[in-house]
Amino acid sequence: MKRKNIPSVTINRLSIYHRCLEKLIENIDKRKPKYISSSKIAEMTGVNSAQIRKDLAYFGEFGKRGIGYPLIDLIRELKKILGLDKNWSVIIAGAGNLGKALVKYKGFQKRGFIIKGIFDNNPSKIGKKYDHIFIYDIKEIEKFIQTKNIDIGILVVPADSAQEVADKMVAGGVKALLNFAPVHIGLPPEIKLHNVDLSIEFEGLTYYLNLW
Amino acid sequence: MKRKNIPSVTINRLSIYHRCLEKLIENIDKRKPKYISSSKIAEMTGVNSAQIRKDLAYFGEFGKRGIGYPLIDLIRELKKILGLDKNWSVIIAGAGNLGKALVKYKGFQKRGFIIKGIFDNNPSKIGKKYDHIFIYDIKEIEKFIQTKNIDIGILVVPADSAQEVADKMVAGGVKALLNFAPVHIGLPPEIKLHNVDLSIEFEGLTYYLNLW
Repeated sequence: MKRKNIPSVTINRLSIYHRCLEKLIENIDKRKPKYISSSKIAEMTGVNSAQIRKDLAYFGEFGKRGIGYPLIDLIRELKKILGLDKNWSVIIAGAGNLGKALVKYKGFQKRGFIIKGIFDNNPSKIGKKYDHIFIYDIKEIEKFIQTKNIDIGILVVPADSAQEVADKMVAGGVKALLNFAPVHIGLPPEIKLHNVDLSIEFEGLTYYLNLW
Repeated sequence: MKRKNIPSVTINRLSIYHRCLEKLIENIDKRKPKYISSSKIAEMTGVNSAQIRKDLAYFGEFGKRGIGYPLIDLIRELKKILGLDKNWSVIIAGAGNLGKALVKYKGFQKRGFIIKGIFDNNPSKIGKKYDHIFIYDIKEIEKFIQTKNIDIGILVVPADSAQEVADKMVAGGVKALLNFAPVHIGLPPEIKLHNVDLSIEFEGLTYYLNLW
């Protein structure tokens, strides 16, 4: 299947559909519906149903006209498309508070993101373990990535060393980078970068605060 | 202006429009476009332009037919609608790694989320400061919220005490709650709850990893 030309906005929406459907299954596991219509997905996600049908059509013919999409198959297919049906190897650069919090974060392992090591330049941290994960010298990061076939790097170092550490991770061979450092990172175009902005989490709330 | 009946999916999209437009302004500040069309916003956000025009029409007549929306005015108006044009008082319950990381997180203050205190039940932490923010006894949380008019509570306590602490925050008078604890929280319907799932940040990436 040729997937290179799917627009990134479609991928973002597929991710939203997947999340909503998973939540749907969780909440009503006693009596799962067998089929789900694009208009029901539209209702849950806010994307209009024509767009949903168009997005899902990228990947073949899931749905039955007038009945909808087989729910379990659709979720399985979305997982496959989105790469959520397998495990990915992850390292964390930066053993500060956020790095440690991410190591302990239960959601990652559950979703198949397996943390293989933490890296730091602080001698008092190197060689120790945090929640069963070894803290290595940041100097070893490139070789570690290469040897252990690490897929994703998480960047939680201070802003002023972020680019340098990112370059090392890319040299080692990570294919994607999750950046929590509040700074712009330049990467080769084939490396996928996602900048995390935690303040976005607030944005849905403040509208409602204004109503009080 | 009556705003109570705007669907939450519209609010979510307004938040997306706002973020994209802010990024647009940041990147091209040397030669800002004066107007932006709904089709250009559609291109950036993946929402179709008819939907965008409909969403923005909830708040009056911004746009000029054939020209588009005045960019600076649109951003200002979106900020106002979304409650991002003012400061909000925030407390953090839980002085663990994630709590500490959030205290230090520069993005919050920049966006008007001012952290007024941290709360914990660990006697070795209570009374200390973290990054200039005082750590109080969790027993004082309800009164503190009441006295200081706190708007938003951030919940980063362990799962097994999350509901209890959430109840105290609501009793104190928070109007919205950002929950990082990996557990379902029950709240009165008038309190806005947002559950943060950091594993979502990975989801956009794994699709692209599959292409390698």
